[in-house]
Amino acid sequence: MFFEVEHQDTRCRARAGKLTTDHGVVQTPIFMPVGTIGTVKTLSPQDLLDCGAQVMLANTYHLYLRPGAEVLAEFGGLHQFNRWNGPILTDSGGFQVYSLSDLKQISRNGVEFKSHWDGSRHIFTPESVVDIQRDIGSDIMMVLDYLTGNPSELALAEEAHQYTLQWARRAREHFLATRSRYGYRQFQFGIVQGGVYKVLRQASIEGLMQIGFDGYAIGGLAVGEDPQTRREITDFCTGKLPAEKPRYLMGVGKPADILEAIESGVDMFDCVIPTRNARNGTVFTRTGKINIRNTGYKLNPAPIDPECSCYCCRNFSLGYLHHLFRVSEVLGLRLATLHNVTFYLNLVGSAREAILQNRFPAFKETFIKQYLNTEENGSGK
Amino acid sequence: MFFEVEHQDTRCRARAGKLTTDHGVVQTPIFMPVGTIGTVKTLSPQDLLDCGAQVMLANTYHLYLRPGAEVLAEFGGLHQFNRWNGPILTDSGGFQVYSLSDLKQISRNGVEFKSHWDGSRHIFTPESVVDIQRDIGSDIMMVLDYLTGNPSELALAEEAHQYTLQWARRAREHFLATRSRYGYRQFQFGIVQGGVYKVLRQASIEGLMQIGFDGYAIGGLAVGEDPQTRREITDFCTGKLPAEKPRYLMGVGKPADILEAIESGVDMFDCVIPTRNARNGTVFTRTGKINIRNTGYKLNPAPIDPECSCYCCRNFSLGYLHHLFRVSEVLGLRLATLHNVTFYLNLVGSAREAILQNRFPAFKETFIKQYLNTEENGSGK
Repeated sequence: MFFEVEHQDTRCRARAGKLTTDHGVVQTPIFMPVGTIGTVKTLSPQDLLDCGAQVMLANTYHLYLRPGAEVLAEFGGLHQFNRWNGPILTDSGGFQVYSLSDLKQISRNGVEFKSHWDGSRHIFTPESVVDIQRDIGSDIMMVLDYLTGNPSELALAEEAHQYTLQWARRAREHFLATRSRYGYRQFQFGIVQGGVYKVLRQASIEGLMQIGFDGYAIGGLAVGEDPQTRREITDFCTGKLPAEKPRYLMGVGKPADILEAIESGVDMFDCVIPTRNARNGTVFTRTGKINIRNTGYKLNPAPIDPECSCYCCRNFSLGYLHHLFRVSEVLGLRLATLHNVTFYLNLVGSAREAILQNRFPAFKETFIKQYLNTEENGSGK
Repeated sequence: MFFEVEHQDTRCRARAGKLTTDHGVVQTPIFMPVGTIGTVKTLSPQDLLDCGAQVMLANTYHLYLRPGAEVLAEFGGLHQFNRWNGPILTDSGGFQVYSLSDLKQISRNGVEFKSHWDGSRHIFTPESVVDIQRDIGSDIMMVLDYLTGNPSELALAEEAHQYTLQWARRAREHFLATRSRYGYRQFQFGIVQGGVYKVLRQASIEGLMQIGFDGYAIGGLAVGEDPQTRREITDFCTGKLPAEKPRYLMGVGKPADILEAIESGVDMFDCVIPTRNARNGTVFTRTGKINIRNTGYKLNPAPIDPECSCYCCRNFSLGYLHHLFRVSEVLGLRLATLHNVTFYLNLVGSAREAILQNRFPAFKETFIKQYLNTEENGSGK
């Protein structure tokens, strides 16, 4: 079985589960570090394992442009290319077309766009995106979706939902009519759209369930709406999605957002926050974020977090990290990334433990209270 | 005993030895990766160990400017700061003042210079440079020297030699009058100057030997002279330097240069070539250098060197490295650096093996023949 719910917390909808792929088992809830162009920036596959990563995400749009699907096919897929031997999930490119590329033209057929990289013109169709992901060889692939920023007018959000649903049907048909290129199983998720409108979200979910996917993602969030709305829509969707399938909230988010969504019953997350923040010198602690560029850390002999098990915290002081960032040593980028990815994976790991012990709501509240009290001003310690 | 010659090749002056410091034993001949500002660019201490590094070099000039000697003193020295627990050698800043800083003013007292970093004015004296290296806590420290580019007129080269020798005397006196700050032993090397003039080199060596140091470095080479002259001067110096003390050829060099100098009896080397080249995508193989940016590597599934034991070669293809450089992933910088540093350490390790078996000249010739045949055009394979 691809997905199994092992336990649901008796006090909320949070659940612990397991995703079984031919590249290994993933314990949920899980955070997937983002390997945009096939590589989690600054980290090697061994680093990812050391952080406790169980599955990585890669972007179909970026891999399609560079190195190109044909190069990945030549190498036998992304796993053989980047040497990450665990599960890989690829998104569909819908979000990157929305956020990165110029001159998007949507039609029933698909989406035409100009590359953010070299200005060249390309077309993604629901079928071509399946084919690209067959070449990439991701364990979990996403259907091509269409999204608009939030809040969008109802008519625009409805259009996005309708395109996404029609494309989902074609993507599923094409998926079922084609085969994995490399001998191992690939799974396919549908994506719920509908902006901030529950009526559209409901229709989207019903349509996708009728088609039937291996899992369901909630898309079109974290694109402009306020946190309260995001939580409401997430909670609404998880309440309607089938309990026996994995649920993936795309592109979310901050630590507290992740815990809120876990409480609603989300199983999978991805976000660039831990990795992008690390490269800016912003690192996560249980009492909030801090920026290691602050001169206050110059003489600090303590690690980011004395209880953290990552290579950075086991070995290096805030003072040394401060120095590395000050003199622009790329080792600093890697050490901060190692820490932040470990932080996120410890967060979902602790969430899972709490769920198995039916104490998730208390765990969440304790974490958020300790974390948010200092998030905005936590940099001066 | 600090240094011991274990064996001299019966067919040449090449020798295998061992340097014993309180941070560990170094088997010579050895290459020291350059950790300019306290960090070998892109590498962690664990990476350095994985490359087979036994001793690292750091630059007094850079550490003095950033983070500053007072910061290192606060942390208990560079070992505690950067967490490299093996031996550290620091140069004296003489070379950086020569090559990097503006507005050098040499006087009997020392050298005044403007920081390349922020334009601030500073003075290095023979004594202050010892004090800074006491704060850094390097296992081996170098005296402040003064060098000119090659070729320089005799009068200028003589001036540089005279300053260096007078400063060496003061540096040694100050060294002997002060103590290690952190409880472990520090050793001090003198530096032979004299440009391309054997008469000056001879006088420099005699003067330094009269003072008496724990080891002797050959400075003022690899600064403009042709390779043949460099070899002649090196060979001249090693012929005059005491056999029972370690000999360090500063800033050299290319693989073939290192082997030639080992044949002359040099024990220690440092150079930015392997690390700086790596960051440009140039990597070393036994059949010459190649640049992994070349589009010819796009689909190449082979590692840089199938017989290399480094993490990069054990896991990644030229095609993937090419991709990493093309999309500017910093992981590429680290993987290439891991490989190049491993290459240099394997080179001196193999040289040592050959010396112990009295076959160094044949080893050198075989290596150079295979390497130089393709060095200039080795990028198309």
